[in-house]
Amino acid sequence: MGAVCQDVADLIKEGRELILVHGGSHETNLVAERLGHPPRFITSVSGYTSRFTDRETLEIFEMVYCGKINKQVVEKLQSLGVNAVGLSGLDGRLLEGRRKESIRVREGGKRRVLHGDYTGTVERVNTMLLRLLLDNGYLPVVTPPAISYESEGINVDGDRAAAAIAEALDATDLVILSNVPGLLRHFPDETTLIPRIERTRAEEAMAFAEGRMRKKVLGAVEALAAGVGRVIFADGRVEAPIRAALDGRGTVIA
Amino acid sequence: MGAVCQDVADLIKEGRELILVHGGSHETNLVAERLGHPPRFITSVSGYTSRFTDRETLEIFEMVYCGKINKQVVEKLQSLGVNAVGLSGLDGRLLEGRRKESIRVREGGKRRVLHGDYTGTVERVNTMLLRLLLDNGYLPVVTPPAISYESEGINVDGDRAAAAIAEALDATDLVILSNVPGLLRHFPDETTLIPRIERTRAEEAMAFAEGRMRKKVLGAVEALAAGVGRVIFADGRVEAPIRAALDGRGTVIA
Repeated sequence: MGAVCQDVADLIKEGRELILVHGGSHETNLVAERLGHPPRFITSVSGYTSRFTDRETLEIFEMVYCGKINKQVVEKLQSLGVNAVGLSGLDGRLLEGRRKESIRVREGGKRRVLHGDYTGTVERVNTMLLRLLLDNGYLPVVTPPAISYESEGINVDGDRAAAAIAEALDATDLVILSNVPGLLRHFPDETTLIPRIERTRAEEAMAFAEGRMRKKVLGAVEALAAGVGRVIFADGRVEAPIRAALDGRGTVIA
Repeated sequence: MGAVCQDVADLIKEGRELILVHGGSHETNLVAERLGHPPRFITSVSGYTSRFTDRETLEIFEMVYCGKINKQVVEKLQSLGVNAVGLSGLDGRLLEGRRKESIRVREGGKRRVLHGDYTGTVERVNTMLLRLLLDNGYLPVVTPPAISYESEGINVDGDRAAAAIAEALDATDLVILSNVPGLLRHFPDETTLIPRIERTRAEEAMAFAEGRMRKKVLGAVEALAAGVGRVIFADGRVEAPIRAALDGRGTVIA
């Protein structure tokens, strides 16, 4: 987190305009366990794994994403001279989308439908609010949840939310950091990094995406289709990780 | 919470401009207990009781104030058609102040000094950010913590933070809601409500303030001295509590 924040501060000092989007899934698992409401992960029939988000889970999710991590990031950035403002998707309806209240899952080989899920997908971004802050010298630090059309908090994937923001703002670059160097031909062998994928073949990248990387690639494909210049999957564990990504390290889809 | 939000929505529809400030002390106690880091309250030598806020407590405080309660309020207001934006004092350095790292306390009849406290007092308000949001149709929903001059999160009293905001914005009215009808001559006898106190005698109100009410009155005295038109201590448990206060119910200091 420190390296990312330092990198953000340096890039902003050089006059770059950017928006930071973060998640908090792992930390949410830890806090949920401690609060006696352990996480439950489900796999949809289409093969995506997600957190089953009942109302109590949504509250814990908000405590960790919006309260703990977002404020830690804002505090760190402020200490580095960046005038950060933390926002969830609820604030100013920043990230708006459709709630998928029920989900068809596979559990133990059987298919069933689960209800009461506060989960969804971002379909609209309040770019006016982002521009208002950017144009007045603030750095938006954005976190899930989003808000449904019925004004409920909904758990959305942070990487796909970042992709939606990049699309809405016609960003030149979307950098997606994780704890691997990029897309790997043979996961988890880091020597098999794929350095470049042509924009027209972006969907083929799905073949190399494992687990949580699948949603990241899905977001990337959507962002590229909507006109974002480049998507770069890069290593979040190195010094100046965003700069390295913008310099072409990682997997560049362009 | 529902009645306050509905009231806010109605007042905004009538063209009133307002800012909502909330706390979350009781809920923080509950979550802190569940997380195995129970709250510790200390009484300063000058007689004010406060939460001893070590770094872990600050994290829990942020989870509850910024993550749980702030997002619940924003979600509720959004469902009522109010375009609320939640902000902590860290965001955009909205509430800036001095950290008091050590505190002289009385414990068991003895005086000692405690270190490592992330606590302080709001001295500066980023009115530019508040005006930016208000002028663009957003309702700021503000919560502690504040930020120190060294960019650390600091626990500040929500009522005094509200007073500082009212001062900074030259508000006509500062309404302080609690679970009593106002200042009581003989606490907790609600039939002894003091309906009105002259501005020039505001400091005498301290004599009627018990426990947590002491900081509320302290904020009120400061706000009045700085030019706020009226301070109203009112009952947060009734229907349309803000409107009732503005209509003069509760204890009006003017």
